[in-house]
Amino acid sequence: MKRRIGILTSGGDCPGLNAAIRGVARAAYEMFDAEIIGIHDGYRGLIDGDYSEMTRGQFSGILTLGGTILGTNRTPFRDMRKIGEDNVDKVAAMKKTYKELKLDCLITLGGNGTHKTANLLSEEGLNVIGLPKTIDNDLYGTDFTFGFHTANDIATDVIDRIHTTAASHGRVMAIEIMGNKAGWLTLYSGVAGGADVILIPEIPYSIEKVAEVVQRRAENNKGFTIIAVAEGAMDKEEARMKKKDRESKRAAEHFSSSAYVARRLQEEVGVEARNVVPGHIQRGGTPSAFDRVLSTEFGVHAAELIRDGIFGVSVALKGNDISHNPLKDVAGIPKPVPVDHHMVQTARRIGISFGD
Amino acid sequence: MKRRIGILTSGGDCPGLNAAIRGVARAAYEMFDAEIIGIHDGYRGLIDGDYSEMTRGQFSGILTLGGTILGTNRTPFRDMRKIGEDNVDKVAAMKKTYKELKLDCLITLGGNGTHKTANLLSEEGLNVIGLPKTIDNDLYGTDFTFGFHTANDIATDVIDRIHTTAASHGRVMAIEIMGNKAGWLTLYSGVAGGADVILIPEIPYSIEKVAEVVQRRAENNKGFTIIAVAEGAMDKEEARMKKKDRESKRAAEHFSSSAYVARRLQEEVGVEARNVVPGHIQRGGTPSAFDRVLSTEFGVHAAELIRDGIFGVSVALKGNDISHNPLKDVAGIPKPVPVDHHMVQTARRIGISFGD
Amino acid sequence: MKRRIGILTSGGDCPGLNAAIRGVARAAYEMFDAEIIGIHDGYRGLIDGDYSEMTRGQFSGILTLGGTILGTNRTPFRDMRKIGEDNVDKVAAMKKTYKELKLDCLITLGGNGTHKTANLLSEEGLNVIGLPKTIDNDLYGTDFTFGFHTANDIATDVIDRIHTTAASHGRVMAIEIMGNKAGWLTLYSGVAGGADVILIPEIPYSIEKVAEVVQRRAENNKGFTIIAVAEGAMDKEEARMKKKDRESKRAAEHFSSSAYVARRLQEEVGVEARNVVPGHIQRGGTPSAFDRVLSTEFGVHAAELIRDGIFGVSVALKGNDISHNPLKDVAGIPKPVPVDHHMVQTARRIGISFGD
Amino acid sequence: MKRRIGILTSGGDCPGLNAAIRGVARAAYEMFDAEIIGIHDGYRGLIDGDYSEMTRGQFSGILTLGGTILGTNRTPFRDMRKIGEDNVDKVAAMKKTYKELKLDCLITLGGNGTHKTANLLSEEGLNVIGLPKTIDNDLYGTDFTFGFHTANDIATDVIDRIHTTAASHGRVMAIEIMGNKAGWLTLYSGVAGGADVILIPEIPYSIEKVAEVVQRRAENNKGFTIIAVAEGAMDKEEARMKKKDRESKRAAEHFSSSAYVARRLQEEVGVEARNVVPGHIQRGGTPSAFDRVLSTEFGVHAAELIRDGIFGVSVALKGNDISHNPLKDVAGIPKPVPVDHHMVQTARRIGISFGD
Repeated sequence: MKRRIGILTSGGDCPGLNAAIRGVARAAYEMFDAEIIGIHDGYRGLIDGDYSEMTRGQFSGILTLGGTILGTNRTPFRDMRKIGEDNVDKVAAMKKTYKELKLDCLITLGGNGTHKTANLLSEEGLNVIGLPKTIDNDLYGTDFTFGFHTANDIATDVIDRIHTTAASHGRVMAIEIMGNKAGWLTLYSGVAGGADVILIPEIPYSIEKVAEVVQRRAENNKGFTIIAVAEGAMDKEEARMKKKDRESKRAAEHFSSSAYVARRLQEEVGVEARNVVPGHIQRGGTPSAFDRVLSTEFGVHAAELIRDGIFGVSVALKGNDISHNPLKDVAGIPKPVPVDHHMVQTARRIGISFGD
Repeated sequence: MKRRIGILTSGGDCPGLNAAIRGVARAAYEMFDAEIIGIHDGYRGLIDGDYSEMTRGQFSGILTLGGTILGTNRTPFRDMRKIGEDNVDKVAAMKKTYKELKLDCLITLGGNGTHKTANLLSEEGLNVIGLPKTIDNDLYGTDFTFGFHTANDIATDVIDRIHTTAASHGRVMAIEIMGNKAGWLTLYSGVAGGADVILIPEIPYSIEKVAEVVQRRAENNKGFTIIAVAEGAMDKEEARMKKKDRESKRAAEHFSSSAYVARRLQEEVGVEARNVVPGHIQRGGTPSAFDRVLSTEFGVHAAELIRDGIFGVSVALKGNDISHNPLKDVAGIPKPVPVDHHMVQTARRIGISFGD
Repeated sequence: MKRRIGILTSGGDCPGLNAAIRGVARAAYEMFDAEIIGIHDGYRGLIDGDYSEMTRGQFSGILTLGGTILGTNRTPFRDMRKIGEDNVDKVAAMKKTYKELKLDCLITLGGNGTHKTANLLSEEGLNVIGLPKTIDNDLYGTDFTFGFHTANDIATDVIDRIHTTAASHGRVMAIEIMGNKAGWLTLYSGVAGGADVILIPEIPYSIEKVAEVVQRRAENNKGFTIIAVAEGAMDKEEARMKKKDRESKRAAEHFSSSAYVARRLQEEVGVEARNVVPGHIQRGGTPSAFDRVLSTEFGVHAAELIRDGIFGVSVALKGNDISHNPLKDVAGIPKPVPVDHHMVQTARRIGISFGD
Repeated sequence: MKRRIGILTSGGDCPGLNAAIRGVARAAYEMFDAEIIGIHDGYRGLIDGDYSEMTRGQFSGILTLGGTILGTNRTPFRDMRKIGEDNVDKVAAMKKTYKELKLDCLITLGGNGTHKTANLLSEEGLNVIGLPKTIDNDLYGTDFTFGFHTANDIATDVIDRIHTTAASHGRVMAIEIMGNKAGWLTLYSGVAGGADVILIPEIPYSIEKVAEVVQRRAENNKGFTIIAVAEGAMDKEEARMKKKDRESKRAAEHFSSSAYVARRLQEEVGVEARNVVPGHIQRGGTPSAFDRVLSTEFGVHAAELIRDGIFGVSVALKGNDISHNPLKDVAGIPKPVPVDHHMVQTARRIGISFGD
């Protein structure tokens, strides 16, 4: 029996997307009579009917390739279900393309927004399987998403390099790590990079506590302090504000979270502090060995689910096992760092401050 | 209450040893009144009374450092319990040093041999805690040892580089990955590096099956084949031999496992085949972000065990949790790759051959 | 004859400082009876008498170490010769420390500011030898400074990673490369990273020309454009302004040069454009093989000059030869990229636009 | 005027080949009406008429790619000019393909063997331009070949990693660096990696001198020694032998040069010594920033030569200039390391022994 599989990547690009695509394709070709259709630029391609039939050779040599050969797009879920004609059109258009392509299944690789739309399409009766990717690791139901460990390697390397300058100049350096809603990447790279302070959205900080660390280190002849700051880190005052107010405060002040920390330390405590925003480099380039393995396992599991006719699920890593969850149970549910997570405790045990 | 902690690293060096040492020390200093004694060159230093009292500053800046600041030594367990006066002397000497140093606990970082001796000392009444390190990942009771993922990164990078030459020259390349008794590193780096064939000790191969892969690829206009060969890989004939006979056969033939594979493909199938033995580079250099985190968690957990007075155990990773096992239950028990492990299945699903 | 050598590092830290220090020390110890005094935090240590006598062992293991074991400081030259009592004090203080330490020679590792002060001290009668370091490569009299090639590796890696995101999302990405006064690093990493547009201070750009490149690429189905922007890049209007006016314009607009380019493309041409400012990571971490070699050669040559009693010079690379220039001929003279430099021509030949 | 350009890569693969091919192609397309024909697997493709017309798009995205998209082959020059019918056929066949393709020029990328054949074809009246590639840097007439600096980065990284193990175990480690006839790569990576001993073909060693270094270090409490050994390194006795006798001695002893050094130190001096042969990884993977720039410059210069009608030359780096030499003056002439080269002197100055 021939099976036609549509595949798309949505949301921010992320190392391991191509490895996962390759995993799906190679396992599908090995296990059954598969035809694979690459849908371009995420859901936009599904809406617009922009796709191409793919050949076996197109999945060769992409294991190590960063980004996504299918292109991606950040059309967010909130636009998908917006009340009004326009939005009904989008869902209808996606269903129409699915039918026209005579797909047996749609594989969507993405984060929370992508999974919400995947669940919406599943509820509309399409056979959908989600694969959880994001460097933020903030998807409910899976221990790790692919992309996270590669980003952790890059962010750790950034902290290593900044260490050099901080130590040579005796400076405070605040390094902004990706993660607007979740602090996983900042937590892991902060521990791996030997940060002195880690500031994450889940644990609001007070600048005075951060300043105390800087001063205590200065007293112990450590003239420098490394602060890993999540994009979405906020001080206690900001944490008490409504999201809208906090965002407009930030917008007015034109500061990134790390620039804000550096400025406040400089102004209020009088130390020389600089910040660095490595930004998009955290999500680019070839996936790490770990992520190539995880992406491949996720992709292969998706192909096994197709073989077994199991749809409406998202693939997941649970402990050491590759498994899956119903889309309706996990789609769009965030996974913040629990404030008593063992990594937080480990960090505290070795003297890292969370500024709280 | 003051606690005196002896710490030693034993067996082959491995990325993450210093990170784990730092984890123990920093957590111990944070949690209780700790004095740390560094024992030099593994059990040799314990036998000879070669050690030094350490200061807080000595654990600073070592998170990223490869190798071990304490030195290491491969004095194997079989020498420890050898019948005869000499051996009784060794154990007695170790106990004597432990007593003279007034240690409250001995932390040993090492692999299977190290753990056997740790268990022996524990049975003799010393307070011992083991930390499982090895790039081979072949220790029973823990999902992963630290060092493994760094070695996986390095081995994968090696396979990536060899890919270039293989593809440009249309050659068969056999790459020898560390692992005499267990194929974990070959399995993971083989999948991550996109190998076409993976040969591990747990799954004896036949050269004819490997040759078939080479020929099938040639027919599909893929002029090259990448073979990841574990040090301890053996063909079916060798697998049937007694260990002693197999070893003397190998010794007589002067070949590494990858050279053997390359030679046989060349002789019997007439293809141009080369082999590469990256060797010790797989265990050197700075630990990866993953291993820095895992080593730190292991070290911190060891300090918590000291605080709680729990001894005679080895720290372990189980799923996502840091935990511990009784030394007597795990010491020296190997952990080969189960032939039906999900990574073996994943590899087969994407068309990788195990030559069986 | 015993020779006492003072050594200091000044200005921004830079990969290769420790390798150069090691080169001076090891060659000095090999060639003559040397005592080496490490002066802390650049000229500040010389002014304040903050230094330490060093031992052979302290130069061991630092070849691969980023930053500087001596500390550094950005006390700029303009402060040194400022009219007024304070400044006379500084020079006098430096001479006093030099005399008290009974130095036979002072080695200064730094950029243009460092060399100006070195020349000042040389004119005051001290025996000074300069070693040219900077990731900007903007020192007159030497083909390359050490640090430049390591920074080029890092900046190129950054561009590689951004390529992934740019191509996957079909975006314009403006990457800000260090270099306020000279575009060397942007030029080299732009060519090495496959940038489509390179904007450097020496060649003022017009945003319309940059927009044309973006549009032409879009027409050829290349949905993304990579723009390497030097920190000090300026458009033609800015180039016509006085430096002071240009700086206050920039300050008022709160934009980095890459953010400015991205914003203007977005506003005026209506394309989605983002910018990345990797910042300090370009100067941190272990020096590359090239820079370890160059730093070592520079350090060794400095020791040879001491042996031969040649002072008042700065070490230089000329073609393949290690040589030296009189400090008075080179100190503080900038080295911008000639607009007809062969690398500019090479870049133009392969279709890279300079926006002019 | 339309110009048809044939291009081939020959000899061992090397980082930068694709970057150079891209440089030729992009500059040619920019400067004149160019058609480019890719000849497969080196001269074999020219002999057999195995080639393909290429499109602009095929040169896109290959800047960072290791190996060669054209394939390569080691058909050596000695086969080309072998007396007998067969050989005349080869040259005739190459001329025939050149004529049939109506080529205006043939670009050959390769090392000494490749250049010999290029010169032969030039003497036969074809328009040939050579581009010097090799990780060995042993081509006469150019300061550096592309590929060398990437290999230097890799070999230095290998030495860095081995350092870890050597220091932790207190061992002698002999690392075999590529280079059968020339010691450039061993010399540069030995200095960059902080080797204690460097053994190169140009400076025959005596094992006693090497042993002295090991012992002197042991006396100074440095329990380990790093020895960088060129593939073609030989001791003084071997150096006195005829090449044929030396080769058969080596073949009989089944040893690599580093294994030979390790074995002899172990046998004659009684120290624990190991060797590592990183092999082909030294030539694989993405080119470094330096080599991408150099390859691009070489490629662009070749296109300029085509534009100007200058043939029978090989492109070269001289100091900082990209230039060219007549093929007849440089083809096949080796470039060993001069024993008084400034890098040899630099190495000696910092206490590195050449075992002489």
